Amino acid sequence: MSDFSVLFLEPDRFLPVEKTTRDLARELYASVKDVPIVSPHGHTDPKWFATNKNFENATDFLIVPDHYILRMLYSQGISLEDIGAPQKGKSSHTSPREAWRIFSKHYFLFRGTPSRIWMDYVFFEIFGIDKCLDENSADYYFEKITSALQTDDFRPRSLLDRFNVEFIATTEGALDNLEHHAKLIKDGWGSRVVTTFRPDDVLDASRVDFKQNVLVLGELTNEDTQSWDGYLQALRKRRLFFKEHGATATDHGHPSPVTADLNRRECEILFAKCLTKEADTSEQELFRGQMLTEMAGMSLDDGLVMQLHPGVYRNHNQTLFEQFGPDKGADIPLSANFVEGLYPLLNKYGTAPDFNFIIFTLDETTYARELAPLAGHYPCLKLGPPWWFNDSPEGMLRFRRQVTETAGFYNTAGFNDDTRALLSIPARHDLARRMDAHFLSTLVSEQRLNAAEAMDVMKDLTVNLVKRAYKLSVNV
Amino acid sequence: MSDFSVLFLEPDRFLPVEKTTRDLARELYASVKDVPIVSPHGHTDPKWFATNKNFENATDFLIVPDHYILRMLYSQGISLEDIGAPQKGKSSHTSPREAWRIFSKHYFLFRGTPSRIWMDYVFFEIFGIDKCLDENSADYYFEKITSALQTDDFRPRSLLDRFNVEFIATTEGALDNLEHHAKLIKDGWGSRVVTTFRPDDVLDASRVDFKQNVLVLGELTNEDTQSWDGYLQALRKRRLFFKEHGATATDHGHPSPVTADLNRRECEILFAKCLTKEADTSEQELFRGQMLTEMAGMSLDDGLVMQLHPGVYRNHNQTLFEQFGPDKGADIPLSANFVEGLYPLLNKYGTAPDFNFIIFTLDETTYARELAPLAGHYPCLKLGPPWWFNDSPEGMLRFRRQVTETAGFYNTAGFNDDTRALLSIPARHDLARRMDAHFLSTLVSEQRLNAAEAMDVMKDLTVNLVKRAYKLSVNV
Amino acid sequence: MSDFSVLFLEPDRFLPVEKTTRDLARELYASVKDVPIVSPHGHTDPKWFATNKNFENATDFLIVPDHYILRMLYSQGISLEDIGAPQKGKSSHTSPREAWRIFSKHYFLFRGTPSRIWMDYVFFEIFGIDKCLDENSADYYFEKITSALQTDDFRPRSLLDRFNVEFIATTEGALDNLEHHAKLIKDGWGSRVVTTFRPDDVLDASRVDFKQNVLVLGELTNEDTQSWDGYLQALRKRRLFFKEHGATATDHGHPSPVTADLNRRECEILFAKCLTKEADTSEQELFRGQMLTEMAGMSLDDGLVMQLHPGVYRNHNQTLFEQFGPDKGADIPLSANFVEGLYPLLNKYGTAPDFNFIIFTLDETTYARELAPLAGHYPCLKLGPPWWFNDSPEGMLRFRRQVTETAGFYNTAGFNDDTRALLSIPARHDLARRMDAHFLSTLVSEQRLNAAEAMDVMKDLTVNLVKRAYKLSVNV
Repeated sequence: MSDFSVLFLEPDRFLPVEKTTRDLARELYASVKDVPIVSPHGHTDPKWFATNKNFENATDFLIVPDHYILRMLYSQGISLEDIGAPQKGKSSHTSPREAWRIFSKHYFLFRGTPSRIWMDYVFFEIFGIDKCLDENSADYYFEKITSALQTDDFRPRSLLDRFNVEFIATTEGALDNLEHHAKLIKDGWGSRVVTTFRPDDVLDASRVDFKQNVLVLGELTNEDTQSWDGYLQALRKRRLFFKEHGATATDHGHPSPVTADLNRRECEILFAKCLTKEADTSEQELFRGQMLTEMAGMSLDDGLVMQLHPGVYRNHNQTLFEQFGPDKGADIPLSANFVEGLYPLLNKYGTAPDFNFIIFTLDETTYARELAPLAGHYPCLKLGPPWWFNDSPEGMLRFRRQVTETAGFYNTAGFNDDTRALLSIPARHDLARRMDAHFLSTLVSEQRLNAAEAMDVMKDLTVNLVKRAYKLSVNV
Repeated sequence: MSDFSVLFLEPDRFLPVEKTTRDLARELYASVKDVPIVSPHGHTDPKWFATNKNFENATDFLIVPDHYILRMLYSQGISLEDIGAPQKGKSSHTSPREAWRIFSKHYFLFRGTPSRIWMDYVFFEIFGIDKCLDENSADYYFEKITSALQTDDFRPRSLLDRFNVEFIATTEGALDNLEHHAKLIKDGWGSRVVTTFRPDDVLDASRVDFKQNVLVLGELTNEDTQSWDGYLQALRKRRLFFKEHGATATDHGHPSPVTADLNRRECEILFAKCLTKEADTSEQELFRGQMLTEMAGMSLDDGLVMQLHPGVYRNHNQTLFEQFGPDKGADIPLSANFVEGLYPLLNKYGTAPDFNFIIFTLDETTYARELAPLAGHYPCLKLGPPWWFNDSPEGMLRFRRQVTETAGFYNTAGFNDDTRALLSIPARHDLARRMDAHFLSTLVSEQRLNAAEAMDVMKDLTVNLVKRAYKLSVNV
Repeated sequence: MSDFSVLFLEPDRFLPVEKTTRDLARELYASVKDVPIVSPHGHTDPKWFATNKNFENATDFLIVPDHYILRMLYSQGISLEDIGAPQKGKSSHTSPREAWRIFSKHYFLFRGTPSRIWMDYVFFEIFGIDKCLDENSADYYFEKITSALQTDDFRPRSLLDRFNVEFIATTEGALDNLEHHAKLIKDGWGSRVVTTFRPDDVLDASRVDFKQNVLVLGELTNEDTQSWDGYLQALRKRRLFFKEHGATATDHGHPSPVTADLNRRECEILFAKCLTKEADTSEQELFRGQMLTEMAGMSLDDGLVMQLHPGVYRNHNQTLFEQFGPDKGADIPLSANFVEGLYPLLNKYGTAPDFNFIIFTLDETTYARELAPLAGHYPCLKLGPPWWFNDSPEGMLRFRRQVTETAGFYNTAGFNDDTRALLSIPARHDLARRMDAHFLSTLVSEQRLNAAEAMDVMKDLTVNLVKRAYKLSVNV
């Protein structure tokens, strides 16, 4: 059997093993391998691209911000501090090199996970390393990566060029001043790196800072956000401000897909109650639901594409949250009911022309039962790619197998990398293209699709559908 | 890669691609390829077979009644009127030929869906067309199909002969006069085309016409349907009337699988409340649940097989429903709880001899968790085939993979086409046979079943199990 | 095609059919084929091993205690008495030979089920039978098996030797006197056959015998179990008593995964209410939930590994239960919510060092959505193997495919046979090893894991992870 110590990524990796199918898959993949990356949804830091400064070292760049890595190591009893993640308001007691050694020693834990696939891609394809990561190679890796990060080739803008990223969207809260995007526009990068309007901070009344955020929203927009009308008007203005900084979309992360369609009087009363913090949990949920419907209505006016990522129990581990803050790998999916949840919004705006509403889920049981039937009916609905834990070989296959027969390919929205891990972007897009080639080649070899059509679909999945869904430039 | 323009259906389509498995699958499929079709559940119009008149044109026959096609086109922003579907009380503003052109231009949307498989079968196998459907071939198709439809070979009864349909059941509401089935009996077709008793119209108190329907039920049966006893007696009589017109089964389409076992006094009070329209939503659900149990009890007396299709949110798009009516592709599945829902009925009648209770679901999460364990225990229960959105290659494989290990093959009920699309009947049965051969061949090639047994099972799945489940003529 | 009458188990059975993948799988399987069996969770009778007496006949040993077999035959209308299962307080009216004949005649019902796989293994590998079981071979089987059972080679301890069982745990209720385990210790078998503490009888206030059981618990421990403190203290003592008889784990079978973290005063009130039988259903559930958290706390003190098997509707068929008692195949899975259910317990003890908490489920929809994300975060959590209905080829593949990408391999707990069917133990472990080889070989052939690593993982899944999870002797 093969040698542990050599790192080599097979050109045909992730394609089906049966020969005629693999030949088909290879041809499909080859046809899109070098297509520029369109990344319409992600969480990279716009500051990187605005300032174009080098990253510091392997650990702080590759491990500390990656919640997939933190959670797996934590699940095996390794403390977050030992791998370089600082407690809130403190700095880590572990040196980057020490943290990297601990990560390397436990790299075997990632066998069979997408993190392993992404990381090996980064090591092999981006840093040109040809030995496997383990305890013995830890220092070699740390030095090789850290020193490469100091070079001009590894500045953020160079990386976008090298990765062939044609378009990338970041995500900012409603109160963000978008200074980095202003700088990017000034530098001529404004149509390549854009923002996305993520107003959870001013829509979610369960947040401790909600009342304060709404006040700031008023200051930023010169509107009286203590009144329902002023609040809505402030949101409209803020959407335009984001649009001026390149945004083509909004994004909404809610605990559930509940929406509502209250009358004006009910909205006023509910909003007032949320502001005074008298609203209970179910009223807060109702308010979030109403605001999703309001956001949809505003999308009809300003043309921003709407994205919804519902169904996550955030910060399930309270102690960890209090010590280390959010995004440390303790967010756990919940089951969702889209059929009843989205009813109010879809019945109000679901058939409006030019309204694009992209839905993501972590509850795969809704793929075939709810989402594909809804997307196969409502003109506005498009299904986002497999999200988060499902952005993986098996996860992508389950999505295609469960969604395609009912929604077709053309009610889906191409691929999103949804990441803050800059170097993983080409790895993730490459994996998605390979898995789409995998899926399509099996359809062809079982004569469920002809080969010429599969080539068309491959191109559509890689680039045309994402551009159409996010209104970038329609080729489909 | 292959030529877009040629339509050719591979003889081995949908079988596994690995060679030894495909060889096995081919042999399994060949053994049942020409077995006559038994279609115990579907929605063809008995008038077709009674009057035996020709169909009019390609659009009105193949597109307008097909909710799978309407929904997909509608989901891509095409108005139903543009593809020939009329608003209620009006006629469509689009000519059949124009509608066909729009359908043809968008035929690519169906890639990867079962509609594509069924339609290509109809075009290639039934109309003998050998070029693909697209914008360019639209008129050729329209003319070829429309003119064929005028010939004697395409009269409804000729089609049943040509398709080798040995038995087909239609579905009628409880108040239907069954005149077409009476004509069929007179013509000697009475044991080949039969009705099914579908009494939702007189069991579901949430319908606006419920009270009126119950009155009509009384008139038709000469019973006082304002009393609980008279209502039950009227239902008994009506079941016999259907049985006299060939029915071997009843069918029930409910929003949930809730059943109930109330005492007589509770039933009388609930029924009275439903009749006066004072019942709230949960009382209406309870009443439907009680009536399922009553129907089961009557099945013990008259021997009719009971079918339940629960878990659909009907007419999710209200505006569309008001304009175009039901069955336009806006029915969306809901999650279901069979374990607690069916408890009252199963505990009352679940072990009665000769009671056959066939369950369908759109909530695939219940296959392995609830339905297979229930069917693998209760003598009355048989699992219907993958329903509706799941009547597809992946859907059928998921069903077999998730159900077989717990329920075995012998607690399932063979295949149903469940369609109003007459020409798709042989396409659907052919697909089901191919997918069963696909599944069985993988069991054999992985040595989970021996080949001789697989041949037996193949025959059982195709014909014996359906005959036994629907009490047609037991071969198993 | 092959001959019905020959029983032969292919050496490569259950491995993938594609040649290069099968070659890999064969190598992986060969590497663990002869590794001793570690069986940390099961329901064999300790009396067998303590007394080491022979079993009586084929029917009473192989059919009557096997709820998988009883349920399938019952689902096809065969009465339990006809296959030798006695009504409560009576003896069966059917002779063992007659019952065996009926079973044999219906053996085809098990096609495609794991029961068939286990039984054929027992017949072929253990009894050396080379003809298939059917009506014709029924008597041959009955005699061959029954006479073999009389020999010394088929005494319980000989079987453990022959099956290469290094360690096996039985399961006893909290009030059991553990006399058989005492005997085993005396005989020098105490570290090979151990007990497991299963206190449902004294934790579940919905049981009719709860109050009585708590009284007996007090007598056994010399504690006042009518007080909350005394009750907890009695449980602590009882856990130690089990630990002294070899227990390394506790096991909890609850209707739901609800846990609770009430304060002391609330606990006292709730406990008092449960004792007086005034507690309603939801209070009983809350009490069970609180007791799971208490059990976790005690595990921190005494080091016993905690196992939870939630989500079963026990004895769904009331009539059958009243006539024949529990475990006759009428237990049906329910859907479960682990994210909210386990929150109290995990937030209290989820990060405690050396706490091992192993979760099982029959609700596969939670694999990817809930359990893998939770196990991929909380240090205490390990996922048990596919349970009960899912202990099958497809079930095991679904588990690995849905769990591995998010939880990795190293947050799982190896294999459990979970059986009272002694002869099926080697069959079940063999199947699990084959399916793990199946899964790993596909990862390797699709280049998602390298071959050398797969060999490591194969070993870990077979033996190291189970030893670590159950604190037997850590090799990982």
